[in-house]
Amino acid sequence: MRIDKLDTPAVLIDLDVAERNLRRFQTYLDDHGIANRPHIKTHKIPALAKWQVALGAKGICCQKLGEAEVMADAGLDDIFVPYNLIGRAKLERALAMARRVQLSVACDNADVAEGLSSTFARAGMELPVVVECDTGMGRCGVQTPQEALRLAQAVDRLPGLRFDGIMTYPPRGQVEHVSKFLQATQDLLAGAGLDPRVVSGGGTPDMWRAHEIQGVTEHRAGTYIFNDRASVAAGAATLADCAMTILATVVSRPTADRAVIDGGSKTFSSDRAGEGYGHFLEYPEAVLHNFSEEHGWVDLSKCARRPRVGERVRVVPNHTCVVSNLHDRMIGVRGDRVEATWDVTARGKLQ
Amino acid sequence: MRIDKLDTPAVLIDLDVAERNLRRFQTYLDDHGIANRPHIKTHKIPALAKWQVALGAKGICCQKLGEAEVMADAGLDDIFVPYNLIGRAKLERALAMARRVQLSVACDNADVAEGLSSTFARAGMELPVVVECDTGMGRCGVQTPQEALRLAQAVDRLPGLRFDGIMTYPPRGQVEHVSKFLQATQDLLAGAGLDPRVVSGGGTPDMWRAHEIQGVTEHRAGTYIFNDRASVAAGAATLADCAMTILATVVSRPTADRAVIDGGSKTFSSDRAGEGYGHFLEYPEAVLHNFSEEHGWVDLSKCARRPRVGERVRVVPNHTCVVSNLHDRMIGVRGDRVEATWDVTARGKLQ
Repeated sequence: MRIDKLDTPAVLIDLDVAERNLRRFQTYLDDHGIANRPHIKTHKIPALAKWQVALGAKGICCQKLGEAEVMADAGLDDIFVPYNLIGRAKLERALAMARRVQLSVACDNADVAEGLSSTFARAGMELPVVVECDTGMGRCGVQTPQEALRLAQAVDRLPGLRFDGIMTYPPRGQVEHVSKFLQATQDLLAGAGLDPRVVSGGGTPDMWRAHEIQGVTEHRAGTYIFNDRASVAAGAATLADCAMTILATVVSRPTADRAVIDGGSKTFSSDRAGEGYGHFLEYPEAVLHNFSEEHGWVDLSKCARRPRVGERVRVVPNHTCVVSNLHDRMIGVRGDRVEATWDVTARGKLQ
Repeated sequence: MRIDKLDTPAVLIDLDVAERNLRRFQTYLDDHGIANRPHIKTHKIPALAKWQVALGAKGICCQKLGEAEVMADAGLDDIFVPYNLIGRAKLERALAMARRVQLSVACDNADVAEGLSSTFARAGMELPVVVECDTGMGRCGVQTPQEALRLAQAVDRLPGLRFDGIMTYPPRGQVEHVSKFLQATQDLLAGAGLDPRVVSGGGTPDMWRAHEIQGVTEHRAGTYIFNDRASVAAGAATLADCAMTILATVVSRPTADRAVIDGGSKTFSSDRAGEGYGHFLEYPEAVLHNFSEEHGWVDLSKCARRPRVGERVRVVPNHTCVVSNLHDRMIGVRGDRVEATWDVTARGKLQ
């Protein structure tokens, strides 16, 4: 089938571009001896996770147990969940998952470590746990290398847990600071006889500098498979590297300078990345400046050529991960031909 | 079951508050002789649409055919789709829908009217069409009363269509201007012998001023069933009128001033409404200032009392409609008891 037979809006993935993205980053990591552990939140599709593994990824990273369960059901068998798991329901599910795949998790405080410990010790199992470090992002994570050491020692002492290493989600553009924090932590751990088997870095924005993190053993990037306007803004990719586009129709042309397309925040999300919400392949000067849920508001004032009602356009979104979560299906294309339709099986998994 | 047995994050709807919201606005519209045509995009749940109709709504409004199909399947039988329908696939679906329910649509240009006309005329049917007016929102719609008249005349002449009236989605706080535009349009139409059976206003922000629109026959509000921080900011509701909360768990307390909850943009969306992304019922001074997809970043610096790791909180979101679209299920509660679990059947319908 050809793209022009698809109804709109629809999420298209250019398979040639995605494959090039995957191969290029895998090669980079291979060259530096860093394991690739892609974050599947970007696509939430088992077939794409398997593609990443087939091309050389060591395992995958899932931010929620619900996503990990979908991936485990599909045969992915090495899964890292970098999230503080709390509460009986999630702990029992983590235990069930650890019985069938190589599961590891992160934690950033002793309460979470104790919950994991009591669950896994009671089952006679040992869960690999890495300590999450806040290297400047300002989200989760211990605040200092000293705190990382204390939590690592607590994990090491707790039954049912195995201290496995350290991880961070780094703030963009602060590679030196991140590296220093993690190096100081590794030094403290070594001094205490605690060997971090895993030093896990992450993110697409600074992915080409992954090797500058001292002692890094693996990298978790998500967006790199598709890329988006945020990756381009971060300098990690070019527009030609953006594999995801939204196929949309111009449904209204109320004024000479205004078009409205049939995709809004329900299709693109409201995530920001520079000016506007998307880049029009056919009308690079058009600005997607506002959304309602089902309408994209387009300013054509800088366009010499302008679309008519009924015309179809393709738009690179700001942030692919949140787009994937909004959609039940995505469509793989090569050129103007549809090659695959995937259910986004792991979308909407909250818990 | 009690709320404390639910895993987090979860979307809760306080049924007492929702019912009060529904009854109060229905009474207001009844008092003014205005028909109620609620926009189901806010909940996307057939049972709630039926509740609205049982309480007096004349019919419903759906922004996409896919949502209308779900509602028609559930027995809703008077559906207005205020959207320019374009392309064979959508036109055929509209025809199928018109065979089983009272369907009406909007359009704002002659190309769309002609597409509708050829489809419905060929089938020997007559589709009620209203003309969409841009009364200052800057989205879809004809720009002047004169343009509205011209399009109404075109619709009136086209086979398979019946000119049914006019509609607008009004810009917030500009009731006088909106009323003037619609009054001028009604005058022009009357002069041309075209009686607008329907004059349809909309929106929650100015819903208590619906009766100030000259000649208005019906009102389309969506958010009023749940309300949210945007409704409160618009002065249409108070925090006590907000029926939807996100039940979340504090998963990290990295610093004295920082908490992280297990709901981020995947749970709340990134829509803005004033400062931050949510109002904490238990910690009104807490500011939900940033999101990643699975983390909500909370600034506690203004809080005298602060939550511990593992504590549960309830958060009023900025914009309920986009929350509904993110979730497969919502939970109806009264007090601390779970009374209903609904599948959000019409979520994710793009086309």
